[in-house]
Amino acid sequence: MSAHFDGWPHVIESQQFSRKWLEGEFLPLADEMQAIVNNRGCEILRGKRMVSLFYQPSTRTRMSFELAMDYLGGIVVFSSENAGEFSSAKKGETLKDTFIVINRYRPDVIVIRYDHEIGASFAAEVSTAPILNAGDREPGQHPTQALLDLRTIFKRRGSIDGLKIAMVGDLLNGRTVRSLSYLLGKFDGVEIYYVSPLNAAMRDDVKEYLHRHNVKFAESTDLRVVASEVDAIYQTRVQIECGTLFDKSVGYFVIDQIILDLMKRDAIVMHPLPRVDEITSEVDNDPRAVYLTDQIDSGLFTRMALLKMILTP
Amino acid sequence: MSAHFDGWPHVIESQQFSRKWLEGEFLPLADEMQAIVNNRGCEILRGKRMVSLFYQPSTRTRMSFELAMDYLGGIVVFSSENAGEFSSAKKGETLKDTFIVINRYRPDVIVIRYDHEIGASFAAEVSTAPILNAGDREPGQHPTQALLDLRTIFKRRGSIDGLKIAMVGDLLNGRTVRSLSYLLGKFDGVEIYYVSPLNAAMRDDVKEYLHRHNVKFAESTDLRVVASEVDAIYQTRVQIECGTLFDKSVGYFVIDQIILDLMKRDAIVMHPLPRVDEITSEVDNDPRAVYLTDQIDSGLFTRMALLKMILTP
Amino acid sequence: MSAHFDGWPHVIESQQFSRKWLEGEFLPLADEMQAIVNNRGCEILRGKRMVSLFYQPSTRTRMSFELAMDYLGGIVVFSSENAGEFSSAKKGETLKDTFIVINRYRPDVIVIRYDHEIGASFAAEVSTAPILNAGDREPGQHPTQALLDLRTIFKRRGSIDGLKIAMVGDLLNGRTVRSLSYLLGKFDGVEIYYVSPLNAAMRDDVKEYLHRHNVKFAESTDLRVVASEVDAIYQTRVQIECGTLFDKSVGYFVIDQIILDLMKRDAIVMHPLPRVDEITSEVDNDPRAVYLTDQIDSGLFTRMALLKMILTP
Repeated sequence: MSAHFDGWPHVIESQQFSRKWLEGEFLPLADEMQAIVNNRGCEILRGKRMVSLFYQPSTRTRMSFELAMDYLGGIVVFSSENAGEFSSAKKGETLKDTFIVINRYRPDVIVIRYDHEIGASFAAEVSTAPILNAGDREPGQHPTQALLDLRTIFKRRGSIDGLKIAMVGDLLNGRTVRSLSYLLGKFDGVEIYYVSPLNAAMRDDVKEYLHRHNVKFAESTDLRVVASEVDAIYQTRVQIECGTLFDKSVGYFVIDQIILDLMKRDAIVMHPLPRVDEITSEVDNDPRAVYLTDQIDSGLFTRMALLKMILTP
Repeated sequence: MSAHFDGWPHVIESQQFSRKWLEGEFLPLADEMQAIVNNRGCEILRGKRMVSLFYQPSTRTRMSFELAMDYLGGIVVFSSENAGEFSSAKKGETLKDTFIVINRYRPDVIVIRYDHEIGASFAAEVSTAPILNAGDREPGQHPTQALLDLRTIFKRRGSIDGLKIAMVGDLLNGRTVRSLSYLLGKFDGVEIYYVSPLNAAMRDDVKEYLHRHNVKFAESTDLRVVASEVDAIYQTRVQIECGTLFDKSVGYFVIDQIILDLMKRDAIVMHPLPRVDEITSEVDNDPRAVYLTDQIDSGLFTRMALLKMILTP
Repeated sequence: MSAHFDGWPHVIESQQFSRKWLEGEFLPLADEMQAIVNNRGCEILRGKRMVSLFYQPSTRTRMSFELAMDYLGGIVVFSSENAGEFSSAKKGETLKDTFIVINRYRPDVIVIRYDHEIGASFAAEVSTAPILNAGDREPGQHPTQALLDLRTIFKRRGSIDGLKIAMVGDLLNGRTVRSLSYLLGKFDGVEIYYVSPLNAAMRDDVKEYLHRHNVKFAESTDLRVVASEVDAIYQTRVQIECGTLFDKSVGYFVIDQIILDLMKRDAIVMHPLPRVDEITSEVDNDPRAVYLTDQIDSGLFTRMALLKMILTP
């Protein structure tokens, strides 16, 4: 199994993965990881060292990466949950200097969530140690989220080809819907419905990518219109901290009992979390809701799979 | 030894403990923990994983829990010292979602200090993994502090029955005096003197509990009046961050040489720390002062005892 | 090999080291540490516990200490990256109380970066566990930085005696140039050129020390004048957060191609990092630049050497 993506040791953006790698390596390996967690861990990454560097908040994602390392027997030798606020970043050190320094300490892998869009890709230019992008600043990417989303869909449908999916909410700034769109572009017959207010619509860079990859998509302001058509609804949170003007008055963007009643019996409701009020609590116990179950599990298995691939020969 | 308190795996509030458990299980086990620390640790929690989630400041308490885990051979797989400021909490995720997610990662135990009063008990509603409450927001509870306070008194007196204790300071907002009062209500013949300004007096919920449990208590504004009567003085800090108006001009609330001179030879001076100026430095070297010695040791042994009970069959 | 410096287990300031210890113990041991890192670690500190307590920002320095512990097989049982902002410090607990408490938990070594100048030395007064000062607030000291700087120079020159060095930038507040000056005072024939604006000149305490130790020094406002004379230029960052008024208009303080062209072929360019714009990027790839290479490596080996000396008999 190859630890590298065409000679590139880093996980930076969804476009870098091939369909062959996704289906032939990633998905089977993620399944293997589930057995390791069920056995309460293993030792295959014994002696391997992770540096976990978060410049932007995320209790859940940081925990997922750090536990993934532990379940595989590796060690998180350094962790920062607020690298940007104090630390050298505050003092004006460039990210490049920081990553040159970290590499001199010779960690085996570096997880980074940076507070500027291009952080992870810029760090990758100077890093010998593999970098795992744990989320760019919005709008940017969150490639490990896209991988776990892909696995979640695959485990329910058995295939990605022919998927009809609605992506709902703040598509202008949401990094997760951007990364997932790029990843779905690797498959055949996918159709995407983007549901958002006009002022929070998906950006052109993604749309142009989809055009080039023959992915059909449509835009709408009313989730009720598409709910019965799709195999999955991917709901997202309004990125208030990005200053999004999200005009809820001119459409329908919430997942509630009305939407559940419209949805197919075997469709699923997804959300990258954290959730505010865009999914009502009555949805939580519906068997089609996977945001507090399958997606979380896939997140752990996905990060374990990436670590195993990157850190073992 | 039972890992559960009447089928409830969590440590949330002082009321949940029975006298039988306190005397028959907790106190003897805490003594055993001292030997483990003297031996520089053991391996009985090998393979066990703790998540340590602090939404509110506490270097000392977090250190006590995390070292307790280490001395028993367990591992702290994730630690946050400021979960509330960044992280999903900032983004509006409910605590319930957070704990559902954390449980999917399958830690063996979760330590939480939350920044709202009902955090730990609410988290316990959805958590399969045992939760240890490392302190509610004031006014609330701090049950592991009450257990270590109880052990400190027990080790000096040999018994809790018949204890006369003064609790001094900001009783309106102090969570430690609240938890300790509830815990002392499990014993016989305890008498409590609450010493505070009128506007920082103990709340009615605790007083009603004491009435129901036949614990005598009296209220005062002058520590000098009760100092010679008691076996222990439990001093607390003014919770400035809670907006307490603490009028020092109308009473006597400081522990100094005057109070030491009044106190019995075998009485003790307690404080949950951090201390500001409510105990003068001349008290520190008096053999009756236990806030920088016995209480700290008992804190470590208490958390070790709880972890051992909860995590071993 | 002695774990103590004249019976003093702590590393607080550069003055405490003797030339005999530096040359006979520290430098050889640091070389041994390089082999351990090349072998991806060892187990000589197995069972040893470090507490890492940072009250002031530093991703790089904290990482260096924590990885040093890991490479030697020890464990970081507790780490805080912002101890001062939340935690008991905020609530007014004195540092003395904090260190008395931490010592009761019986760690084997405590690393501290405090946000007031006298922190580490004050903590050392009450701490049985050895304290490693990871940097005072400016102006103060940063003794482990001075040791790694010394090693960097020694490895290039083979000797410290007769060294000519320029120290440039905010000498008023820079703790690194202070600690390095004190350390160079242990050797013979050293000459220091202090290059700074008049309002950011080296303080009298250091100058008086140099006088007493027969170290020649001169002050200048133009790096071009001294660049061709020296074996090393030690550049530093303007401590904006210290309120330094740094008047760049009346001298020459930047290291750029002009300075490189003036420097000797075997001279070196040093910087403690983080760097802002006082070294231009064209310098980075010059073989004389050691701030992103030799100094970083020496930092790791220096902290490992100190930990090994302190924690093994």
